[in-house]
Amino acid sequence: MKNSDYKKKAVDSWFSFLQSQICNEFEIIEGRRKRFVKRHWKKKRKKEGGGISYLLINGKIFEKVGVNKSTVEGKFKKDFRSKIFGASKEGKYWASGISVVAHMRNPKIPAIHFNTRFIVTGKQWFGGGIDVTPCFNDMSEKKMVHSMLKKVCIKNKKNYKKYQKWCDNYFYLPHRNEPRGIGGIFFDHETQDWVKNFKFVRELGLTFIEISKKIIDKKRKLKWSKKDKEKQLLKRGRYVEFNLLYDRGTKFGLNTGGNIESILMSLPPQANWK
Amino acid sequence: MKNSDYKKKAVDSWFSFLQSQICNEFEIIEGRRKRFVKRHWKKKRKKEGGGISYLLINGKIFEKVGVNKSTVEGKFKKDFRSKIFGASKEGKYWASGISVVAHMRNPKIPAIHFNTRFIVTGKQWFGGGIDVTPCFNDMSEKKMVHSMLKKVCIKNKKNYKKYQKWCDNYFYLPHRNEPRGIGGIFFDHETQDWVKNFKFVRELGLTFIEISKKIIDKKRKLKWSKKDKEKQLLKRGRYVEFNLLYDRGTKFGLNTGGNIESILMSLPPQANWK
Repeated sequence: MKNSDYKKKAVDSWFSFLQSQICNEFEIIEGRRKRFVKRHWKKKRKKEGGGISYLLINGKIFEKVGVNKSTVEGKFKKDFRSKIFGASKEGKYWASGISVVAHMRNPKIPAIHFNTRFIVTGKQWFGGGIDVTPCFNDMSEKKMVHSMLKKVCIKNKKNYKKYQKWCDNYFYLPHRNEPRGIGGIFFDHETQDWVKNFKFVRELGLTFIEISKKIIDKKRKLKWSKKDKEKQLLKRGRYVEFNLLYDRGTKFGLNTGGNIESILMSLPPQANWK
Repeated sequence: MKNSDYKKKAVDSWFSFLQSQICNEFEIIEGRRKRFVKRHWKKKRKKEGGGISYLLINGKIFEKVGVNKSTVEGKFKKDFRSKIFGASKEGKYWASGISVVAHMRNPKIPAIHFNTRFIVTGKQWFGGGIDVTPCFNDMSEKKMVHSMLKKVCIKNKKNYKKYQKWCDNYFYLPHRNEPRGIGGIFFDHETQDWVKNFKFVRELGLTFIEISKKIIDKKRKLKWSKKDKEKQLLKRGRYVEFNLLYDRGTKFGLNTGGNIESILMSLPPQANWK
């Protein structure tokens, strides 16, 4: 097996493992009353890969949560190549990633997003991040999230400050002059030292589970009103705007023949606009 | 006054007139129980124009309807120029347009969209269209809409077949392999014979009012169930996807410093995703 094949296999199977861990923990949070529904999909050209998506809807905690893992390959269309790091020449790519978006029933609990990916073009790199989108300010929650992310960054000699800023810049709606949420971390094009980066990516996945549990545990019992819900539904409108107007993962999926249900699984079950 | 200034003034004031006509007719449909709320906006550089938007929400018929008119000018950002007809050189533009999106309370009544515009870059041209998005098939409604559109096209020596196909191609969601609705007409870059094109644009505006009244009158008394509403909310999710992922008017607005509330007034009050 080639060195790069070994890497691909390791990454792909880690993401599968992490997916099962996340789904299991989230079902525990739901008290096993609601279960994830699993779906396989394949690209049109079957040998170009596909993915497995897990979707849980109408839970007590999770109004909708999708946990997607996909591993695909192919050639970028010509006009898309210039937009992808290292892909300008012949446009070949291999990509594997996991992404999670959780939209909560209780408006007091923020939406949580997590993604990690490994992409091979002319270059090969890791990317990913975690970010949190509350409807209500909560300084202690924000501190908790950021201190846990800082910890995993420092442990892995990653520049937390840089990743944090990157996140703030990325999850921003310029047309609204609004951040999407309270940030977190975001990184991309991490080409150096594959072993260390992969370790960081693995630990970030486990940290995501811990952060999610902490956020939810603290707030699951909080009461909420119809007005709170309305606020959440408008906030979700912003989420939809971001994902359809700007999100690079969405664009990547749409441009590489991904599965539409999986790509748009990040969209909330309901969103409102004034 | 220069010839082109005369044209601009005529177009701008026609769109203002049409806006008042549409709002008046729609308020009559509502039985004057709900009124449009009017808002002015200006671009950051005030001499680059702005617009007036009229919004009516929570009506008996219209759950949300926005009627926007704007007249703006400026210079396109460099990377946007290549996307606009006739704008490759220095990027200067002047644009005036009216657009209407009506989202109905009753899921049996389709959403209706109308837009006409006059744009001046290195070239000058009219564009616009009308299209209809039902949740339930209704052959006789579809026939009525298309025959009225055909009539106004033929009267103005416009190629109805071409415009109809253009509409089907434009209002299409490739990622879903789905049309947005039942089509209508769409045209763009009509540079020839300003006088005739302007007349066509005016008559199309009045035809839009007639079509809207006919569609609504036929269906306003129809009963609907919760299940019908759910179907409508999912259909509206598609509407959101189209407008944020593909719509050129939305992109034009976002790229020319338009008013965000007006640009996104086309979004429904509520949309769902499975």
